[in-house]
Amino acid sequence: MEALGKVYLIGAGPGDPELLTFRAMRMLSEADVVLYDRLVSPEILAFCPRRATRIPVGKAPKCHPVPQERINELLLHHALRGRVVARLKGGDPLVFGRGSEEAAHLRAHGVEVAYAPGITAAQAAASATGVPLTHRGLAGSVQYVTGHRQAGQVLDLDWKRLADPDTTLVVYMGVANIGQIAIGLMTEGLDPATPVLAVAQATTRHERRLVSRLDAVGRDVRDAELRAPVLFVIGRVVALYAEAGIPGAVAARAMAAAHA
Amino acid sequence: MEALGKVYLIGAGPGDPELLTFRAMRMLSEADVVLYDRLVSPEILAFCPRRATRIPVGKAPKCHPVPQERINELLLHHALRGRVVARLKGGDPLVFGRGSEEAAHLRAHGVEVAYAPGITAAQAAASATGVPLTHRGLAGSVQYVTGHRQAGQVLDLDWKRLADPDTTLVVYMGVANIGQIAIGLMTEGLDPATPVLAVAQATTRHERRLVSRLDAVGRDVRDAELRAPVLFVIGRVVALYAEAGIPGAVAARAMAAAHA
Repeated sequence: MEALGKVYLIGAGPGDPELLTFRAMRMLSEADVVLYDRLVSPEILAFCPRRATRIPVGKAPKCHPVPQERINELLLHHALRGRVVARLKGGDPLVFGRGSEEAAHLRAHGVEVAYAPGITAAQAAASATGVPLTHRGLAGSVQYVTGHRQAGQVLDLDWKRLADPDTTLVVYMGVANIGQIAIGLMTEGLDPATPVLAVAQATTRHERRLVSRLDAVGRDVRDAELRAPVLFVIGRVVALYAEAGIPGAVAARAMAAAHA
Repeated sequence: MEALGKVYLIGAGPGDPELLTFRAMRMLSEADVVLYDRLVSPEILAFCPRRATRIPVGKAPKCHPVPQERINELLLHHALRGRVVARLKGGDPLVFGRGSEEAAHLRAHGVEVAYAPGITAAQAAASATGVPLTHRGLAGSVQYVTGHRQAGQVLDLDWKRLADPDTTLVVYMGVANIGQIAIGLMTEGLDPATPVLAVAQATTRHERRLVSRLDAVGRDVRDAELRAPVLFVIGRVVALYAEAGIPGAVAARAMAAAHA
């Protein structure tokens, strides 16, 4: 009888391979099979062992995704055959990563799971731009939400709860809906002048930034044609962007809007 | 004239050196001077270059801390003398890390700053226990707050906003006030049976865990004598703790309470 394999659920971080943890790299080095998301960069895939089989399971917007059930089956299939499976995910597997769904399926079949946390996009945007997620006197807490819904589903965010000037609001996967999100927040009383930072493809060589305000961000993001993934940081901490002075590629028109 | 040095604001993560990023390690390897917090583990300090001067600036609860102003001065002092300064902080420098305060002081004097993000305690607790921070159907968002205030200051958290069954609430530095926090949340309508995970010294060999409920966590934490730093995860995702099945040191009495 063949011994069971195991599955490593690995946070590959935002894209820059230097932001991998040593644990992520160690787990990847043990892999016989690697299942990876679309957002895992080629530079990181280059660290897969040469013997390892690589299986893309990425979900591109509006393309045919590999359904979650099929990913679960693939992970289980290889683990049951005694293989060490690395499941590489952008960011952190337990922050909007569905790592716990995959783990539940595997554990139900007796397969052992271990995690490597990863630098999530909010932290990547912060460290790349110098905009903190919390800062004394500006934001005492930070909240992460997702601005994406399945096709046909309403964006049912609790605007009243989210419209808090003392909390930094971070929106993942929000590029299609940021205009609607801004309106929801303003309707519940958040100042239209609240600054917003958008960072596309943070920490990769394609990184682009845009600084805007709540009442202009929908238009600015559309005009700048930012490409997903885009992360939004909304709140007073964004006022520190200019002062932080960390250079980067900026969507120029949007900067003008921010200074208007 | 001497060239200016620079300062690296480095997230050292939760304690396990395997959770350092490659960038953190690279920046540390360049350092002439290392200023480090109390929560940076000896295993991580062992990676300081032998030539580097090590300066502890840790803030222990109720002990004489090095005031923030003095830390700012020390960083500037060494950078102005042309040194590469590594500022090692537990977790992530821009999540309750005051990294942006130190950066502002340095930049005001012309000193260049760069960041390495770090795995923050919430992610460490999640990956160590398998309890996700978000999970479809259980929590669509996650919020980080701090449960600590300076001596004499009121814990002025916005209970109404925080008492949200659809959001995972993560409390940093809350061990002294967790009973009060639980009462505040229940007063605003959060179910007293809401499960709570406490993880002390996550990812270190001293890690201990406790699973309780909102209406028992104050007493359970006191009885278990958990030692800071303790991170609290409050919300329905904690119900996945047992299912995740990742072994660890548990405070036994508290587990009984959770199953009562």
